[in-house]
Amino acid sequence: MSFVTATYRVYDQKKDLHKKAESIALGLTIGSWTHLQALEKKQLEKHKGEVVEVIEEKSTDIANRLFGEERKTGLIKIAYPQANFSADLPAILTTIFGKLSLDGEIKLVDIDFTSDLEKAFPGPQFGIEGIRSQLQVYERPLVMSIFKGMIGKDMTEFKSQLADQLLGGVDLVKDDEILFDNPLTPFSDRVQAGSKIIKEVYEQTGEQKLYAVNLTGRTFDLKDKAKRAVEQGATALLFNVFAYGLDVLQALAEDPDIHVPIMAHPAVSGALTASPFYGISNKVLLGKLLRLAGADLVLFPSPYGSVAMEKSETIDIKQALTEERALKKAFPVPSAGIHPGLTPLLIQDFGIDSVINAGGGIHGHPGGARAGAKAFRDAVSGVLATQSLSDAAAKSPELAKALELWGSPT
Amino acid sequence: MSFVTATYRVYDQKKDLHKKAESIALGLTIGSWTHLQALEKKQLEKHKGEVVEVIEEKSTDIANRLFGEERKTGLIKIAYPQANFSADLPAILTTIFGKLSLDGEIKLVDIDFTSDLEKAFPGPQFGIEGIRSQLQVYERPLVMSIFKGMIGKDMTEFKSQLADQLLGGVDLVKDDEILFDNPLTPFSDRVQAGSKIIKEVYEQTGEQKLYAVNLTGRTFDLKDKAKRAVEQGATALLFNVFAYGLDVLQALAEDPDIHVPIMAHPAVSGALTASPFYGISNKVLLGKLLRLAGADLVLFPSPYGSVAMEKSETIDIKQALTEERALKKAFPVPSAGIHPGLTPLLIQDFGIDSVINAGGGIHGHPGGARAGAKAFRDAVSGVLATQSLSDAAAKSPELAKALELWGSPT
Repeated sequence: MSFVTATYRVYDQKKDLHKKAESIALGLTIGSWTHLQALEKKQLEKHKGEVVEVIEEKSTDIANRLFGEERKTGLIKIAYPQANFSADLPAILTTIFGKLSLDGEIKLVDIDFTSDLEKAFPGPQFGIEGIRSQLQVYERPLVMSIFKGMIGKDMTEFKSQLADQLLGGVDLVKDDEILFDNPLTPFSDRVQAGSKIIKEVYEQTGEQKLYAVNLTGRTFDLKDKAKRAVEQGATALLFNVFAYGLDVLQALAEDPDIHVPIMAHPAVSGALTASPFYGISNKVLLGKLLRLAGADLVLFPSPYGSVAMEKSETIDIKQALTEERALKKAFPVPSAGIHPGLTPLLIQDFGIDSVINAGGGIHGHPGGARAGAKAFRDAVSGVLATQSLSDAAAKSPELAKALELWGSPT
Repeated sequence: MSFVTATYRVYDQKKDLHKKAESIALGLTIGSWTHLQALEKKQLEKHKGEVVEVIEEKSTDIANRLFGEERKTGLIKIAYPQANFSADLPAILTTIFGKLSLDGEIKLVDIDFTSDLEKAFPGPQFGIEGIRSQLQVYERPLVMSIFKGMIGKDMTEFKSQLADQLLGGVDLVKDDEILFDNPLTPFSDRVQAGSKIIKEVYEQTGEQKLYAVNLTGRTFDLKDKAKRAVEQGATALLFNVFAYGLDVLQALAEDPDIHVPIMAHPAVSGALTASPFYGISNKVLLGKLLRLAGADLVLFPSPYGSVAMEKSETIDIKQALTEERALKKAFPVPSAGIHPGLTPLLIQDFGIDSVINAGGGIHGHPGGARAGAKAFRDAVSGVLATQSLSDAAAKSPELAKALELWGSPT
């Protein structure tokens, strides 16, 4: 039988985790069990949720402080039979964390799909290997950057920013997630100008590049809009998946006419993940679910910046995106607060199968975005050649400038 | 100019709410301001976010306990110019609570749209007045019930439960939100059987009824599925909007071929609303946004049951759904833990423009669902005739039985 197994962390007022687990397993499937007659039991057996495991945990200080009382804390693992739901993420979310999301202090901390159920989901179209082969870049982290302050600016600014970033050596450039379709830089103009500049940069440098245009607008227009973009030369899409829905991402990833890498942005996801007591863990939401739904690259707050995520959570996301399974692997993209001095730490924490992504750390370089990009590439080359950053900076004035400005924690 | 104004409750570690407000207003629009030259200022003026108000609040006990330190607490109100975003909910959510949702202890507690921007949204197709005129029921709360334990059951059970509930006198019956398309009770069979039974009940009783079938499946199939359902006689739709996306609800509500009331279920919404420190308030998510997007009826946990919501939050939702504005009003449907003994309290708290909705409080009646439904209708009639429940029960053995079983808090 196929199952989704969901793991919840609960803080139980009634202090009986086993009872709570049973009430979830039955309440979210067939309702009741012990009072059923033998015939009905036989009929409903395959629909019955099962308690897989209950693990008591020591209550944390933060929980005791918040609740002002000691509660029974622990993990509850429930298996939901696939006989109960259609093989789509809205049905699965509604089953495992629909009503339950409203039921007091409970957080969805992990999910597991049996492998036959996992096969119903596309996973990344390209994944890490596919994107590496598009870019012809192997055995180093990719370097990515973000447009800066494009709201209110026109195509001249767009073109100059894009060319600068790419010529400096970044592999991918993405739109700001708050840049929507607008009269100054219309979606389709950005796609076409992006495609043209990428070709020019290739002719000049021999390097392949990707530009992720922000796919925005009404849900039911997105597929057509994405298809037109691909026809016009779009090389990648940025998508604010949590402002839409995971199933929308899946539909884009499954469409054979939208055959470009999709980069998932975490906008709005903090509303679901930030509390230790409610909502959904980053591992599940930004890790497992985005990979299932087909994100090729996943942005999340790095553990180093001012908008930071706990280190352990970022590692959980990376793990979920890259662990071996039937689905292709997705690139983890720890973002925010990244400057060249962090390169050794980024490679140590996220490995070479990751993307180093900077905004201010590229555009804020005293020599401009082009110098900022070069500083990152030189830092990466140095670290992979087991040089110290200061040794690498000896041959790179751009990196030296960056280290002077931002320093390096190592 | 058109604006979205967003109000956030923040718990600021740096203890300077005005500085925080400025950094949000600029950071989520044009990035920076003071260093710009006069020409650029002129060009970007209409894109600049504005701090409307900063209101300091006394830090709550629960916040002090959680953070283990005193923080500066208060409300920050920011106006975002519409020049920055397209008039759709994904763009608006990404603008006002995209990156910001990931930025520490901050909760989106209110939103306001200028009236010209509000006009871009459909609001309810029918609303309270439209549904009353469909049902020909005025000047009393509607009574609604939910199928019980349909997973693993077939169409025979479906038909008998539906007929029982309707003949007992409920106005609307809804599917369980965890009942998906399945071989035993396929979506289209439920629609057709529902339509037939509603006709039969009308012939027998002269009362119009609605049955809300659970619209489920893949996002891009929903419109066609809903249209087919309407052609086959569907009278209403139930929709797990938070497992999909607000914009999907809006698209369904806007489609002229899907001209039936839509009932929004709060499944998954607790992941966004439950924390006092993160996420989105119930007033915004279940109240203002669902009304804008076009829900005709909105379910939310009642303040009385075991899966309960704070009384003040339920009143906020009701207020947002029913306050006078250009949009039609939506029915508040406080749910869970409802039995006939709560009728006076329900009418006192939610008024007659609300829906009294029960599952166990109908099906758990000793005389079955039909008697359970009658008990509710008799309780409503009694309360509206300013009788006490026990007086009303004197002429209704069904109500007497219900009061005996569940009691009454009044």
